[in-house]
Amino acid sequence: MEAVLLDLSGVLYVGERPLPGAREALERLRAGGLPLRFLTNTSRSTRAAVAARLARMGLEVPEAEIFTAPRAALARIRARGLRPMLLVHPGLVPEFEGVATEPADAVFLGDAGEAFTYAALNRAFRLLMEGAPLLAVGRNRYFREPDGLSLDAGPFVAALEYAAGVEAEIVGKPAPAFFHAACADLGVPPARCLMIGDDVEADVAGAVSAGLQGLLVRTGKYRPGDEARLPPGALVADDLAQAVARALALARVP
Amino acid sequence: MEAVLLDLSGVLYVGERPLPGAREALERLRAGGLPLRFLTNTSRSTRAAVAARLARMGLEVPEAEIFTAPRAALARIRARGLRPMLLVHPGLVPEFEGVATEPADAVFLGDAGEAFTYAALNRAFRLLMEGAPLLAVGRNRYFREPDGLSLDAGPFVAALEYAAGVEAEIVGKPAPAFFHAACADLGVPPARCLMIGDDVEADVAGAVSAGLQGLLVRTGKYRPGDEARLPPGALVADDLAQAVARALALARVP
Repeated sequence: MEAVLLDLSGVLYVGERPLPGAREALERLRAGGLPLRFLTNTSRSTRAAVAARLARMGLEVPEAEIFTAPRAALARIRARGLRPMLLVHPGLVPEFEGVATEPADAVFLGDAGEAFTYAALNRAFRLLMEGAPLLAVGRNRYFREPDGLSLDAGPFVAALEYAAGVEAEIVGKPAPAFFHAACADLGVPPARCLMIGDDVEADVAGAVSAGLQGLLVRTGKYRPGDEARLPPGALVADDLAQAVARALALARVP
Repeated sequence: MEAVLLDLSGVLYVGERPLPGAREALERLRAGGLPLRFLTNTSRSTRAAVAARLARMGLEVPEAEIFTAPRAALARIRARGLRPMLLVHPGLVPEFEGVATEPADAVFLGDAGEAFTYAALNRAFRLLMEGAPLLAVGRNRYFREPDGLSLDAGPFVAALEYAAGVEAEIVGKPAPAFFHAACADLGVPPARCLMIGDDVEADVAGAVSAGLQGLLVRTGKYRPGDEARLPPGALVADDLAQAVARALALARVP
């Protein structure tokens, strides 16, 4: 094991607070010399805003180490010359500055939160019925907020897929291309990368399917029994501190 | 064939206008002496308001002949003593007058339209995660409005089922119990009832699964190619006039 990929929300922090011991665990991981990348389907803010928010929590993560699903979508939208309807959170809109969106010939769906109105979903539905492709950050079911679990983008992907009889193109986790882009950026083969996350499907099963090693932490959105849905060979740790100890052992860092 | 069940929206009218020839077709059907029931998953208004709306369009349908999915839900909610969160259209709320809703221990989902906000869906999701049952009018994907197709309740059922990992209890079409209640009210065995509708799944396949005969009309939400999804033995007609002619022939009405 030569490199570590980490999910952000639910692994390093929940809401606006770092998880207990997360800051120290991250420092220990960095001290071990393993190259890191942070992979998130979070899509309520730009990559710059994600880095700034982590800094406010005392979590040092350079912007260049952060891979966000919306940035992957942006690259795909530009490569294909799409004009997407942006069904996204207002905080994410600046990420798509300069991208033509009218007349729309595609739908890009992020975790839009309150922006998931009936009118917006209906407009997206009608575009899909005309043959527009549906790009989505991921299929994540929910995430943990300080006051409880909240709906992520996945349920709204499921709604539009069901309504229009189409299948979304997932650009973030668990799409293998997303993991592979991070591994390529590190220059480390997927089989020698460990992905740490709190989402069984998007983080752990996704990583394993893409040929990486996967580790589930029992923090964030974790709920007892999630282990039953893990793929064979996946690892489990109580929190980031334990996950880091495991990663350093696998990497034979003394 | 001794009785006819009819869907409303997309068969008799679209928006606030009767479909061409629908009024005359309905009169011819009544003149043929076949007993009728109207089955709808429409859930944006009370049964009384549905009847009043039909009357405004010149469609004579006594309230007692209308079976609505929300009324079926109401009966089930009362029988089980549930206190449902009502994720419904404001126009439907009066149908549930007198039903205790706090503290909620169930979710009832109708075609809530603009009331499908992120906050409301999230509240429903959290109840489901605590084990509350999800009752829903149906799984209808979309319906036709004067300006195009619009999202029905089904996509939102799909969203919540996916998010919480649960299965909804469908109270309207295509639930066999809903068709059977209408047949029982007519005193005619299901095998001798014909269901006419514009929704392949909810109306036609649902009726056939419940032991009735099914007929798809090519009006309302019908889209070319829908025939491919019909169950074996289902009938097809261009509109209500043709469907009525077929029904009267099957019933040997001269």
